[in-house]
Amino acid sequence: MAVYTHLGAEDLSCLIDHYDVGELVSAKGIAEGVSNSNWLIETGGADGRKDASGARFILTMYERRIDVGELPFFLGLLDHLAENGCPVPRTIHDKQGASHRLVDGKSVALIEYLPGVSVDHPTPDQAFSVGKALAQIHLAARNFNGTRAQSLGLAGWQNILSDCGDAALASIDPALPQICADELSFLTANWPQDLPKGVVHCDLFPDNVLMLGNQVTGLIDFYFAANDFFAYDLAVTHAAWCFERSNGDFRADIASALMRGYQAVRPLSASEHAALPILARGASMRFISSRADDWLNTPKDALVARKDPMDFVNRLNFYTKMGGDTFA
Amino acid sequence: MAVYTHLGAEDLSCLIDHYDVGELVSAKGIAEGVSNSNWLIETGGADGRKDASGARFILTMYERRIDVGELPFFLGLLDHLAENGCPVPRTIHDKQGASHRLVDGKSVALIEYLPGVSVDHPTPDQAFSVGKALAQIHLAARNFNGTRAQSLGLAGWQNILSDCGDAALASIDPALPQICADELSFLTANWPQDLPKGVVHCDLFPDNVLMLGNQVTGLIDFYFAANDFFAYDLAVTHAAWCFERSNGDFRADIASALMRGYQAVRPLSASEHAALPILARGASMRFISSRADDWLNTPKDALVARKDPMDFVNRLNFYTKMGGDTFA
Repeated sequence: MAVYTHLGAEDLSCLIDHYDVGELVSAKGIAEGVSNSNWLIETGGADGRKDASGARFILTMYERRIDVGELPFFLGLLDHLAENGCPVPRTIHDKQGASHRLVDGKSVALIEYLPGVSVDHPTPDQAFSVGKALAQIHLAARNFNGTRAQSLGLAGWQNILSDCGDAALASIDPALPQICADELSFLTANWPQDLPKGVVHCDLFPDNVLMLGNQVTGLIDFYFAANDFFAYDLAVTHAAWCFERSNGDFRADIASALMRGYQAVRPLSASEHAALPILARGASMRFISSRADDWLNTPKDALVARKDPMDFVNRLNFYTKMGGDTFA
Repeated sequence: MAVYTHLGAEDLSCLIDHYDVGELVSAKGIAEGVSNSNWLIETGGADGRKDASGARFILTMYERRIDVGELPFFLGLLDHLAENGCPVPRTIHDKQGASHRLVDGKSVALIEYLPGVSVDHPTPDQAFSVGKALAQIHLAARNFNGTRAQSLGLAGWQNILSDCGDAALASIDPALPQICADELSFLTANWPQDLPKGVVHCDLFPDNVLMLGNQVTGLIDFYFAANDFFAYDLAVTHAAWCFERSNGDFRADIASALMRGYQAVRPLSASEHAALPILARGASMRFISSRADDWLNTPKDALVARKDPMDFVNRLNFYTKMGGDTFA
């Protein structure tokens, strides 16, 4: 939600010169991403025109959390999905063909700019399109060569919560330590072992989807992508889209449209379908753990908005109570 | 340096519908301004095209510090200067002709987007252009009807520093309370009373100037504009541009180019020229006082970068020592 590094016109011009995109015309630091600094860059275009109607790009500087050794995976994934017709921004390679460069010791990448805005209150038609786009990247990811271990799976949630400690978790809500312990023990005993898998997004909240009307114009922010069950990614997306922003109420119409959209492109197997309730409980635990960690470790007066982990306790309770009915 | 308010696609689309600029295509919160939230908005253009090559605007939401009653002054000033050929963004008026609207109880304005980037290390040619542009707005401001009292003049600096208190000032630097007391007493006795005045910018740091090459494409952020001496605004700009960003060294070549550029458009009178050393000492006090206040009252772990008030103590010392030689 901030730009962590100052880059002046001279730094930016010098960087942009390494790409065949024309001269720098504008650069605005944008308030997106919590681990990266991002700029919306405008250039005169590769034909050298230096005016206000050139080409636009997102420049991302990788500040924290992201292991630079993983950039070829993340950027290669964008290129692979874009080449396969998915609404995903491609990476702009420099004149030497590199997908990322160093500026002041930090890695940067120039990424395609896509139009579209993120919705707060999706309609069923929009959820249908998001389901389709998610299934589309799952199909396209099947022949992607890269792999990345899922660090935020069951063992990861357990580690994060154990690092937080029960006393700290109880400071968020007295019931939280017991809820987490019970759920982790249930999930450990019941987590599915054998479902179709591949590289999946794992964080497809409305913030990470650009839309124009009912059309998905961009899926962005693949920095949690990892090898996991396709159906788990659908469960994450379900948990991220199907509850009202204001009061957490379940929206059956959105959920139904999301499921229909997904299956219009990639029908679920019977075992995937049967696993959805437990996968959605896992998705809830994934965000309970990371949000609890952020809640406890983000200074209260920082400008980054902390997200309440209890929102996902409510979703966990909902999925536990409703079971398969949620995904009928 | 942050976006303080969340506006989703639905809020933004609804707002943009009130303007004759086409449909919303993109909106990115940008990390500019410390008192306002800003978004870089793209629309399909007034001809209704809904693609990625439409028109761009800056949407500003006034969050703090700015009195909404003053918006007609600030926005009217932009329009006046733009109409008079100055490189200043004009205000986009809504379909009813209003220059600002309310969203969730906060005032917003849609402002013209201008190309250009802010330089960190100006060249003499760039400083020459900045001097010219500053003189150009001074000439154009002479027939602007609005007026706004200078709240950050001598009395304002005195109030801010007195609110900080000597003990707090000494926590920044042990010498600071005495430096401020001595300088304020000198300025009170010697501040000029009768120089040409009008509405001036008062904050023309490199951050507030957009450039393409040597050309000034935009002067922005007029939210400190007030009625004051034209020569004081030149002194502020001198203090803001003529010292190296890295080590505070005075750059005589930049200073000389800035003065030549200014006087190429608006030659200074003898009394204005003679007053520059004391006006520059006042400009230094203006930023010592506001930066000391921010330094003491911004949480250390906030994402807003605090600026060191001592940078301007160094400039104050420089102007005191050099006197008229600086502006030869």
